This record gives sequence, C-alpha cells and structure tokens, in this order.
Amino acid sequence: MFIRDCWYVAAWVHEIPDHGLFHRMILGEPLLLYRLADGTTVALEDRCCHRHAPLSLGKREGDCVRCGYHGLMFDPQGQCVDAPGLDRVPPKACVRTYPVAVRNRWVFVWMGDAALADTALLPDNFSCDHPEWHYQPGYLHYDTPYLLICDNLLDFSHLSYVHENTLGGSTRIAQSKPLVERVPRGIRVTRHVPDVPPSAYWQSFHPFSTHVDRWFIYDFVLPGTLLMDSGGRPTGQADNDMSDAVRLHSCQTLTPETETTTHYFFQQAYHAPAPNPETTATIFRGLLAAFEEDRHMITAQHRNIVLAPSTPMLPLGMDLALVQFRRLIDAELAREQTRSDRATSGTPLRTISIQPQQETPHAA
Amino acid sequence: MFIRDCWYVAAWVHEIPDHGLFHRMILGEPLLLYRLADGTTVALEDRCCHRHAPLSLGKREGDCVRCGYHGLMFDPQGQCVDAPGLDRVPPKACVRTYPVAVRNRWVFVWMGDAALADTALLPDNFSCDHPEWHYQPGYLHYDTPYLLICDNLLDFSHLSYVHENTLGGSTRIAQSKPLVERVPRGIRVTRHVPDVPPSAYWQSFHPFSTHVDRWFIYDFVLPGTLLMDSGGRPTGQADNDMSDAVRLHSCQTLTPETETTTHYFFQQAYHAPAPNPETTATIFRGLLAAFEEDRHMITAQHRNIVLAPSTPMLPLGMDLALVQFRRLIDAELAREQTRSDRATSGTPLRTISIQPQQETPHAA
Amino acid sequence: MFIRDCWYVAAWVHEIPDHGLFHRMILGEPLLLYRLADGTTVALEDRCCHRHAPLSLGKREGDCVRCGYHGLMFDPQGQCVDAPGLDRVPPKACVRTYPVAVRNRWVFVWMGDAALADTALLPDNFSCDHPEWHYQPGYLHYDTPYLLICDNLLDFSHLSYVHENTLGGSTRIAQSKPLVERVPRGIRVTRHVPDVPPSAYWQSFHPFSTHVDRWFIYDFVLPGTLLMDSGGRPTGQADNDMSDAVRLHSCQTLTPETETTTHYFFQQAYHAPAPNPETTATIFRGLLAAFEEDRHMITAQHRNIVLAPSTPMLPLGMDLALVQFRRLIDAELAREQTRSDRATSGTPLRTISIQPQQETPHAA
Ligand code: FES
Ligand code: FES
Ligand code: FES
Repeated sequence: MFIRDCWYVAAWVHEIPDHGLFHRMILGEPLLLYRLADGTTVALEDRCCHRHAPLSLGKREGDCVRCGYHGLMFDPQGQCVDAPGLDRVPPKACVRTYPVAVRNRWVFVWMGDAALADTALLPDNFSCDHPEWHYQPGYLHYDTPYLLICDNLLDFSHLSYVHENTLGGSTRIAQSKPLVERVPRGIRVTRHVPDVPPSAYWQSFHPFSTHVDRWFIYDFVLPGTLLMDSGGRPTGQADNDMSDAVRLHSCQTLTPETETTTHYFFQQAYHAPAPNPETTATIFRGLLAAFEEDRHMITAQHRNIVLAPSTPMLPLGMDLALVQFRRLIDAELAREQTRSDRATSGTPLRTISIQPQQETPHAA
Repeated sequence: MFIRDCWYVAAWVHEIPDHGLFHRMILGEPLLLYRLADGTTVALEDRCCHRHAPLSLGKREGDCVRCGYHGLMFDPQGQCVDAPGLDRVPPKACVRTYPVAVRNRWVFVWMGDAALADTALLPDNFSCDHPEWHYQPGYLHYDTPYLLICDNLLDFSHLSYVHENTLGGSTRIAQSKPLVERVPRGIRVTRHVPDVPPSAYWQSFHPFSTHVDRWFIYDFVLPGTLLMDSGGRPTGQADNDMSDAVRLHSCQTLTPETETTTHYFFQQAYHAPAPNPETTATIFRGLLAAFEEDRHMITAQHRNIVLAPSTPMLPLGMDLALVQFRRLIDAELAREQTRSDRATSGTPLRTISIQPQQETPHAA
Repeated sequence: MFIRDCWYVAAWVHEIPDHGLFHRMILGEPLLLYRLADGTTVALEDRCCHRHAPLSLGKREGDCVRCGYHGLMFDPQGQCVDAPGLDRVPPKACVRTYPVAVRNRWVFVWMGDAALADTALLPDNFSCDHPEWHYQPGYLHYDTPYLLICDNLLDFSHLSYVHENTLGGSTRIAQSKPLVERVPRGIRVTRHVPDVPPSAYWQSFHPFSTHVDRWFIYDFVLPGTLLMDSGGRPTGQADNDMSDAVRLHSCQTLTPETETTTHYFFQQAYHAPAPNPETTATIFRGLLAAFEEDRHMITAQHRNIVLAPSTPMLPLGMDLALVQFRRLIDAELAREQTRSDRATSGTPLRTISIQPQQETPHAA
C-alpha cells in the first residue's frame, strides 16, 4: 500500500532515449515512458489492453506506439488508433496514462488520481539543474521496501556508525541532538555539530587542516525525497565568512518499484562557479561508497525483519523524525482512502491526461 | 488444472537413452522413462513408493529399475519385485505407470485414466518420420504457463509483428482474416495471403524473385498440438503448379511441465525427394530464431499477467481461434470432472498398464 | 516446529574467531556468537532491539558489541549499556541471549527455556577431542529439512545402494537386520555383518586381504546427533583380537537452519596412538564423497516430497528406527507444548543466562 496522489521520480531525464521506449516499474505497475516529437515525455501503462504484452517491446510510429504482439497502435493519450485486421478500432481499446512532469532533470509521474495532479507539489530539486551546482547523477536499486530507506535518511545518527570511515568522521554527530520540525508535507531536521574533525569524504576534495563546524539541514518530504543543505567551515571563523566553506546540496528520492524493492535516485552537488571534473568524480565515488554501506546494512536489516515480521522494534529518541514521517504517510493514506470512498461513482478507470511540463532553462 | 485423458508428448525418441533412465516432469508429476530390452518404452512415476526418492537416480537391472536409496526393485509394470532385507516383498509396494505410445519419433504418455488410453487419439505428426519430409528436431523450455503459448499458436496475426524480420514479411498477414472451423478435438485455421513479398526466412533457403501467394492451414488439437501445412508459390502461377512452391509441414506440441512452465517440442519439415543438410540447418536456425522471439514476448506478457492477474484482457477479433480452443479445454475439463465424480468407487489409485506402441518403419 | 529444550550444535570451536563476530542462523533465528576476553563463548540474538539490524555487522568493544547502525552497545548478558545521543540508556533495550556450552570442540546452544539448560544432556562426542582419536572436522549445508537427514542416518540399509562404491561394499549390509533399542533420549542401532568384503573406503587407508566381520553400533539421540562405534576385523580372528582391526568413532549432528535448510557437522575419527596426516585426509575425503552422495539423494527426495507433500510414504521394515525417532521428537514436542501452556504467566521473554562452559584439556 503506497500513497498515490503525489509525484514519484520515474527516471533521470537522460535515461529516456530520444526515439526509443523506456520501461520502468513503479508501485508494482509497469510504465512505458517515451518522448514525443516536441520533446514532451509521456507515461503509459506498459501493458497492452489486448493480451497484456508490454508496449515497451513494440515500436514507435511517430508519436504513437505499436504493440509488438498483434499490432494495436496507441496514441500518447493511451487511445488505440489502429487495429490491424479489424474492421474498426475498438473504442474500448486504450491504456492508462500517467501525468508526467519534468523538472530539473528528474522525470516525475503522478500515480494517483490524475485530476489532482498539481505541479505545485513538485519538490525543489534546484541543484539538479543549476549553473553554480555540480554533480554526477546516481541511481541504486534496493531489494528492500522503500520505507526502510526513508527511515535511514530520517535519522542521521547512523552517520557515525554506518559511515564511520566515509561520510561520518565523528561520533559527535550521533551524540548531537537534531532539531526536528514539521514543514508542509514533510519533516525538517537541523543539526549543527561544532568543532569536529572533518570527514575523510571531505578531505578527499576539500582538505581542512583544522577542526570544522558542520551543519546538516534537510527537508524530507512526501513521498520520499530528501533535499539537504550541508557543509562545514573551519572552526572559529566569523559567522558570515563562507570563503573556506564546503557547501553541498543533495537531492535524493526513493520510488517504490514493488512492495519490497526500490529505486533510489540521488546526487550530491557542490557549489562552485564552474564544475571541476575531478571534484565531481571524487564526490560521486565517496557518496556511492557510503550509499553501498547503507544498502548493505538496510538489506541485512530487512532480512532480519522478514525472518520475524511481528517482532516489535524499540522506539528510541533518534527515531523522532522517522516516526513523524511514517505518521505523515499514514495520514495521507487515510486521506486518499476517504477520498476514494467518497468518489465511488467517480472518475473513469483509465484517465487520460498529460501535464504541462516544465524544464528550467539551465544546461546540464 | 490440466486435462489428463489425452496424449502428451514426453520426449523425442532420441532423448530416451538405450540403457539408461530418463527423467521428465509432466503436469507437475515426475516421470521416469526407459526402454525395455525389446525396445518398448515405459513410463513410471519417478517417485519410489517407499521414501519418495526418484527412481531415475537408481539403476537398471534387466527390464527392472532398482531404487538408489534403499534398493526396492520395480518391474516395468511398476510392481516391486525385490525388497532387500525384508522377509517378503510387500504387495502394496508399487509405483504408478503411464500408458506410452511412440509414433513418428514422438514419445507420448497418457496422463489420465489408463483404461481410456486410445491410440486413435494420437495426432497425425506424419512429417516427423517420412522419407519425403526433412527437418531437425527442436525443443524449448518456457517459463510460462502452456496456455499462453497455445494462444500464440492460435493467432497468426502476431506473425507480422513478433516475426516481422523472420517468419513474417508482411503486415498483410495480420490484415487477412483467417477461416476458423471446428475439427474433432480442435480448431482448423485457414489463411490464404495472395501477392505478398516472400519472408526473409524463405529467401534464406528458397529465394523467390517475385511476390508469392502464401497459405497456412493448420489444425490445433487437444491437448496443445499444431499440425500445419504451409507454403507459397510465385504469384500468378497456375493453381495446380507446385513446381516452384515452398512446401512445409510443421508439428509442434506443448506439454505442461508445471502450472507455470512448459515443454515445447517442434519441427518444421520441408518437402523434397531427399534431405539437403544445408536447407535443413537453415530452416531450423530460422525457426529457432523466430521461436525465441515468441518466447521473449510471451515471457514478458506472462510477467505482466502475474503482476495483476485479475486485470481483464480485451477480446478482439483475432482471438476467435484461441477463445474457441480455451472453450474446448474447459469442456474437456468439465467432462473429465463429471466422469471422475461418477467413478468414485472406481479404478485403483495406481493403474498398471502399458499400451502397445507403434513406430512407423521410416528411418529418421 | 522444532524441539527447543535441547542443545543444538551451532559451530565447530574453530569457526568462532578470537576477536570477531560470528553469525549463524539456527531454528530460523539469527544468532551472534563471539568469545569474551576470558575465552568464554556467548550467543546473542543477532538482531538489535532498536531497528533489527544484525549485531554481527557491528563492532566489538571489549566484551561488548556495538550495533553498526545507530550505535547501541550491548554487554554479553544482552543488556544495552550505551546509547549514543540519548540522555540515559533505555532499560528495556536488550537482546535475547542463549545458553552456550562448549564440549569437545563443538559449540552448543540451548534454544529453549534457559532455566532448563542442563549440561548433563550434552551428547558424548568424546572422539572430537581425544588424544587417541584423529579426524578432520567437516561441515555441509543442506537445502532440505533436517528430519530427512535424520531418517538417512537412522537407516543404514541405504549404505548398500547410495554408497555402493564408497562406504558400502556389500548388499549384505542392507540384508542384515539390525537390533533397534531405546536408549535415553534416543535409539540404539546395532548391526553385525560377518564375512563380507571390506569397503573401498577402508581399503584406501587400511587394506585387508581377507573378508571382514563388520560392526556398526550407534546411538542417535535428540535433537539429531549420531554417535557411532564402527569397524571391522579379518574374518576368523579371535573375538578379543583387535590387533588388525579398523576402529572408527563418528560424531555427526544436524542443526536446523530453517524449516527447509540444515547445518550438518560431522567427523569420523580413527583410533591410533598418533595421528597420521595421510590417513586423516584419506578418511575425510572418503567420508565427504559419501556424504555428497547422501546429499544428492536426499535433496532429490525432498524435491519429490515438495511436489506432492500429501502423497503417503510406504512404511517398511527398515524404517523401524526412523519411525521410533520421529515418535520421540513428537513426544518431546508435546511435552514442551504442555510445559509452555502451564507456564503462561512464566518466564520473561528475554532470558539472560550464560552456562558454565566445559572444554576438555586435550589439544586438537
Ligand atoms: S497484446 Fe497488444 S495487440 Fe495483442
Ligand atoms: S526410497 Fe526407494 S527404496 Fe527407499
Ligand atoms: S538498529 Fe541497532 S542501534 Fe539502531
């Protein structure tokens, strides 16, 4: 059971080929993504209404896609427009479409009621496409439910243990108590850790010779997106002096593939007037190494949970943010349930709708 | 749930070794097949009645097989005839046997009530063993239920799409409406497609310089056997002129291994006074390439169905034959059910029966 | 469903590292085993009470183990003694511990009620650590339920068939009737087989030029441990003359990993004033080859059982011991059930108890 009336990231923009067909499973549903001649990206159910062949095994014909099994052709609105060997196109032949929005190099799909799709709900992933922020895009596949990974991102006390030798650098991070606040559709976690050794990760691209004052300020918003401002400055510098600071902005988002597997799209951008390929690569490698540490831990945790799913966990202080986020999801699930109960007569099963798409003008 | 009172192909004749033990799972039941000294092939349940070890892990002793676990020995009628360390052979010790028929290089087993086994129900797979028809035998394993593959063989409109670059050659095939008729225990599909380009497949072994008139006439009979006469002649030739024709006869049959996996035995024979090894190889390669295209599509279709088993399919005109065939299977299932309800007191659990076997005298 | 109030072997002593953390799953429960500074081995639930991360992915700190996810630290009694970032250690934070006993190089854990743990119930695996008995330790992992392997060890008629070319050597073994007796918590099987050819296995390390009189006397005791005295002497020698005898003592034990997988710890020791490395290796190789034969057979048997779990087996004379042993297990399961029903108010969920450990003084 997932919340549906929200934007999930389906792909990085560069994953969708210019002329081909791209398959991705989201919330257990097979999706076909492709680009129209005018550049617009559309998302169709990747299951032909005839005998359920994946349309992604078919062929493009202009802006349409022809099923590779018996040749039904569908337009970008999901409507069948050609049916070889039949006297007329069967009017009921159509596949579901999903609203799509493209912003800052992320391709979002709206998995719920298309009438509610609202680009005002898109997260502010500005650093994915900004001339002063630089990064290498990342993707990981997880064999665990997506909420376990949300938990991980909502409690940075794990930095000191899981990432002791990579991102972490000091048990002081675990010991510092974060400020946890509610923001619209999410949680804000703020942590200031003064006077600690810089992490090995930082030293690899921005060596400090002194202790540093570190900050982590992030929003974690529905359905599972982390937007984080973090960094550090030499301990003792004046408050407004950012001249020797490390400034990072990270956008990470989790999209359930199925109940037990997850897509993880991420980047960590650094602030600089121009990109430095070596720094970009170093940061990416460091981040990936750390994310593999998370994946190793969370996968092992998941195996333990599967062994004894009803064994209770022991809530502790560091769980504050993750408990609040799970409540937010439960509340959203309940709201969607109520709404769909009320709308019994409601919307047709196959909604056809393409959202206007926005792409910021910055180059990659 | 499968129909049982019918012949399923268990193997090509050459798969059963002269002296060894051959295992094959059919309808979810483990079978042991082996040849007696007189050449007769027998099929026993591949599960010792003692502790369920597979007899195929045991040893031949003359026409008997000795279990490799604790040494019970069974004769070709499935009766235990030696029990080491016991004072007498336990009379209840026996394994089920299955009626076997060998015809035209296919080894058939009767999975239902042995009293009903009737060689008159064997399909006419003549081209599997005929001096004027030549082929290389084929086998594929499918990770899909067998009915999805029956569907595929019952609707040749897929030729134009799945096999566009191999068997197909023209969308005219999909556009031509076949004649669909009932035949005993099956469906006959007849298609004449005049004046189309020859398929790439044909050109590889019998090049045409003109358009061709193609025909496909096949019976698809219970439990899942295709017997097809197909071919083509240069467009415009006199009706009775077969001098430059391609003439093919194909025998293909599907045997469920389990509810979700299938054995596929097939050949496509060409008519010629004598075999030409190069043509034989070319036809086999072309066929196999096309059958891999089917397997790829059907496997993807099956994955989609598993994701959402209750999503309805949309019946279309080209489904006529497959819908009729599924009805035939349902009717046969119902008939078997009624019969077994009536026979409650009925036959003993383990029937022991070997059918007379027929083998045509032609060499391979 | 397994009996729990008994000692299961979790590991060979040498598997537990001196300073690290060792994971093993037993009865479907994840266990962490490690050695304290004083050499004592402890077993903790390998699942942190906080968010269920495996403690075995954490770190040793003295005699404690710190969870690698958010840093809770547990002492050898399973009690949390440090909780980074929290004002005080939550008193409910603890993990289950299991009584451990080490005897003769086997590490045993008590999976049931810790109050009942009793070292008097340990099996007499003396030859695992005795100056006159020599062996190489063995471990196999089985993808089958543990009772099928118990069955195998309780019926040596399989020696003549499964091990015809390795341990067996004569169908006379299957034909000889063993004496089957009850012993405390188990079954004793005694077999004397006079005047048979020596097995190929023996000839490899102790060649005989005559027929031999063989004996097999073993106890098979709860939960699944074989203690066997076996050997052979030249046929015709005086009863008390052991001068040219092969004398073997074998300790083998089965520990369920899950309902369908099993740990198999084994050795076969030979009696000699001093070890001979070549003989040790030859015996081990021969034993392992034979045990692979068993594994192959039992795994195939298990696959057949899974196909048709409700198909009855046919009890035969050679099943006497295995039937008795299964009754013993059922009786023990019933007794544990009654006891736990009576103790509803009973013991706390997480018992904390370390058993005194015994290690005989002999070197390996
Ligand atoms: S499955 Fe798509 S046209 Fe038949
Ligand atoms: S399982 Fe075949 S003889 Fe025991
Ligand atoms: S899971 Fe062990 S401290 Fe959180």
